[in-house]
Amino acid sequence: MQALTHYAQLVEQGLHQVVDKDTPANLYEPMRYLLKLSAKRLRPALLLMACEQCGGTATHALPAAYAIELFHNFTLMHDDIMDNAPLRRGKETVHEKWNKNIAILSGDALYTLAMEQLCTIPTNTSKLLKLFTTTAIEVCEGQQLDMDYEQAAGLSIPDYVNMIRLKTAVLVGASLKMGAIVANAEENVCNTLYDFGMQIGIAFQLQDDLLDAYGDENFGKQLGGDILANKKTFLLLKALECANIDQYDLIADLLANKKEKYNTYEKVKKMLAIYNDLQIKEQTLTEVEKYKQAALQALENANFSFTQKLAFIDFAELLMKRKI
Amino acid sequence: MQALTHYAQLVEQGLHQVVDKDTPANLYEPMRYLLKLSAKRLRPALLLMACEQCGGTATHALPAAYAIELFHNFTLMHDDIMDNAPLRRGKETVHEKWNKNIAILSGDALYTLAMEQLCTIPTNTSKLLKLFTTTAIEVCEGQQLDMDYEQAAGLSIPDYVNMIRLKTAVLVGASLKMGAIVANAEENVCNTLYDFGMQIGIAFQLQDDLLDAYGDENFGKQLGGDILANKKTFLLLKALECANIDQYDLIADLLANKKEKYNTYEKVKKMLAIYNDLQIKEQTLTEVEKYKQAALQALENANFSFTQKLAFIDFAELLMKRKI
Repeated sequence: MQALTHYAQLVEQGLHQVVDKDTPANLYEPMRYLLKLSAKRLRPALLLMACEQCGGTATHALPAAYAIELFHNFTLMHDDIMDNAPLRRGKETVHEKWNKNIAILSGDALYTLAMEQLCTIPTNTSKLLKLFTTTAIEVCEGQQLDMDYEQAAGLSIPDYVNMIRLKTAVLVGASLKMGAIVANAEENVCNTLYDFGMQIGIAFQLQDDLLDAYGDENFGKQLGGDILANKKTFLLLKALECANIDQYDLIADLLANKKEKYNTYEKVKKMLAIYNDLQIKEQTLTEVEKYKQAALQALENANFSFTQKLAFIDFAELLMKRKI
Repeated sequence: MQALTHYAQLVEQGLHQVVDKDTPANLYEPMRYLLKLSAKRLRPALLLMACEQCGGTATHALPAAYAIELFHNFTLMHDDIMDNAPLRRGKETVHEKWNKNIAILSGDALYTLAMEQLCTIPTNTSKLLKLFTTTAIEVCEGQQLDMDYEQAAGLSIPDYVNMIRLKTAVLVGASLKMGAIVANAEENVCNTLYDFGMQIGIAFQLQDDLLDAYGDENFGKQLGGDILANKKTFLLLKALECANIDQYDLIADLLANKKEKYNTYEKVKKMLAIYNDLQIKEQTLTEVEKYKQAALQALENANFSFTQKLAFIDFAELLMKRKI
């Protein structure tokens, strides 16, 4: 099998041509800017890999791969406005570098270009479009739930997992399934890959929550960002679920942090102490493992050869390799 | 022929079911709210009429009609954010009633639902999608040019007309053409209707500029809104083109209106006096007529029967009937 990086390079070569139009510059330059920020092209690479693993030709699936990456970048452009994010991949976000109106409209046009690319695939077009639009709606729903949950009291863990499923994981599943559809794979194979991608996507996102609090040596990010931002992560929700009255009160006190009672260092330290007392790290790892196993289990539903399975498992390992 | 109102009612009956989903409420309620504001459903009605005039069945084209109306409403939701508009059809805009983030995301989802509807048409799907995405890109380009031109010095009339063509007129052309495509009409017929719709769309928009300054008895809007807002309309651009040095200086002085030298009444009155001196009303009417005639001329390119032509001409008359 070709490595994912090979597929990523294939995507990289053609992707920029899709947005290579001069005017109006304020519409197309923000797209080019965002697409040129360093990125792994994971979703489109996955799509191409799935296509070849299912007996298709990767180059035939390229427009679908572009579509997935353009769509992903469209969601980044709009999400960054909604989250008021100053930086994306270490550089100014589009709405900071230009303005919010330009980021809204350039995002809309980017989304349209994604759809336009997808329509150029001649085989199974309607299946591809149906999956793509259904997934796009789910991603919107996930983002809305994420915003709703910021304000919500008493968020349950199943609701949280459903939100990350919609916001992040379905797009991983859809990427794999779209590759299989282009390769004209059987429906069972398509659905198996979707399920595998979705489960691994959830596992990845839960691990992301864990890394933000505990980090690993390869992970340059400052630790405790989610704790400082009062972000409702799996860890916090689990802690709230497991806490005794004293622990619960302390968490509430840390979240409120009235009159800046705790400095940033103290806030992170005290929250992590509660997490440690409640074995949140271990409980999260168990949950990550649960979804990882569900993903591997899902792979058994199609009649994949050993080599095919290995390709998908290799991807899962690659995705999850950032160790605690 | 069935009246356009008949088709509009047909659209109205089914349109709301498309957005009839409960959760997340903050995603779907803004869509329902906007779609329930009174609207003429002109574009989808046109689409259905074109379909029947080309021998198709209107009900088969309904998903395409929904798609056009949903897309149109998506552009309204996002444009209202960009224009900072407080009101839409006399009611609070979505970003005012909820907030900007909700208006961005609900718009994105509305756009996706439009695409989803279009994909359900089983015949000529790829032709429909190609036209739809090309048109959507053009509408984005038109909106970006509109924003760019707000800041631009020395805007030419051809550039202005190109902007209104992209922002407004291509969607009228596309609506008619999509109806013809669903009816499996010949390419020449499809292109003729597109051309007709686009030309009449430009005529309509230029007339709109005129009505804002001169109004008519059936037109409840306050006059001179564009003049007060320094909006670059056909009238202003024509006046700048035709003005002598003194008139040019007075226009510049009115546009700058330093230290509120002119009150609103004076500003409108003085600008209209210049327009009258330069016969801007007559020149605009000539231009409107030029595009109207081009639209009618375009109709001759297909082998339409007298009855078919009459249907399209009736629409053109209806659209343009607001007399000065």
